[in-house]
Amino acid sequence: MKTQDHSITVTAYRWVPPEVRGLVRDLRVRWALEEAGLPYTVKFVGREEKDGAEYRQWQPFGQVPAYEQDGLRLFESGAIVLHIAEQTETLMPKDAAGRARVQTWLIAALDSIEPAVQQLGAIDLFHSDAAWANERRPQVVEAIKQRLAALAAWIGDREYLEERFTAGDLMMASVLRNLRQTDLIAQFPAVDAYFKRCEARPAFQKALRDQLADFVDQPLAA
Amino acid sequence: MKTQDHSITVTAYRWVPPEVRGLVRDLRVRWALEEAGLPYTVKFVGREEKDGAEYRQWQPFGQVPAYEQDGLRLFESGAIVLHIAEQTETLMPKDAAGRARVQTWLIAALDSIEPAVQQLGAIDLFHSDAAWANERRPQVVEAIKQRLAALAAWIGDREYLEERFTAGDLMMASVLRNLRQTDLIAQFPAVDAYFKRCEARPAFQKALRDQLADFVDQPLAA
Repeated sequence: MKTQDHSITVTAYRWVPPEVRGLVRDLRVRWALEEAGLPYTVKFVGREEKDGAEYRQWQPFGQVPAYEQDGLRLFESGAIVLHIAEQTETLMPKDAAGRARVQTWLIAALDSIEPAVQQLGAIDLFHSDAAWANERRPQVVEAIKQRLAALAAWIGDREYLEERFTAGDLMMASVLRNLRQTDLIAQFPAVDAYFKRCEARPAFQKALRDQLADFVDQPLAA
Repeated sequence: MKTQDHSITVTAYRWVPPEVRGLVRDLRVRWALEEAGLPYTVKFVGREEKDGAEYRQWQPFGQVPAYEQDGLRLFESGAIVLHIAEQTETLMPKDAAGRARVQTWLIAALDSIEPAVQQLGAIDLFHSDAAWANERRPQVVEAIKQRLAALAAWIGDREYLEERFTAGDLMMASVLRNLRQTDLIAQFPAVDAYFKRCEARPAFQKALRDQLADFVDQPLAA
């Protein structure tokens, strides 16, 4: 659902290496917007632009995604997804307790699962030839397995983390995607089934198609 | 502000190694509660308890802090601080735009700053003798310096990340504390002054005193 004339803008990259396509974090925001049925426009930022003073006023760390809606400028995919979730009951209940539980799972995904997952991604995608990576990798894998075991125990027979799909599941599944170069998820059947359930959602499939379609094959000239 | 008869409960450890005292994450929640003027009770969890099925129903990853308020059970210090922030304008404005900006900074602290800071902490506190740690450390330091430079550029002449102190500053300062074994913060004067401004707050000082006072010298017998 992209239009050229709407009040929501999301920043994204035009080119990234093939191994990280489908992982760049604007995907999380696109998914949330599809679940919410909110149209948006993509603004592509290049390398020079993202390190420039103007973009840094919007995204102080020079990353994507940044987000603008009705004059409000935000960054951090987690915070943007929360802001979108507050606009639709599809992603978050309206009552204070339900909202707090969604915030809890969203931040658990970012803070209790993703740091180790990200370390493994860095090792496997960018440092696989380094001696340190070879030595460190088993410890990181062990840390991830402990977290996945805890997640599997929580999920058990549940369909989603709470009674129904929320922004917490959106973020958890988005984080788990970063294990795709491994067989770790498959080792935990409850997590595996949960993960597939989340990714089967039409809103996710649409967001992924749109992100992948927007990439160009080669870095653009500066 | 602790009482023995109130509706807010926060879990914490009775013993941790000296090098991580003042860093355990219940401090973040204690600080938020002091800013909000909300009394709370500490429930200590031991090693066996935190890995038991009952505690895992409350905190699926067996960590502290977990939180209970009027029957609502939460975990993840970031989510708990957000939930407390929504109860007091001291930590978060009431309007949607102001709330979204606070969420953005709180998640930026957890997601754009803390992962590298945590990696450095693991290297310095727990793996300093390992060959991989020696080889990896300069890269992690470089990543942190890039983030601190970006943070310094944002702060500039600002007193806080937004117009006034919020839960975003509380979380950013809490994350920066995990660099205390290094001189990295001192290398960025704007960040250094900002960090000291946050830690000088009476609510932080009270929360820190209370956390430190609660530790015992030796692990308790099982």
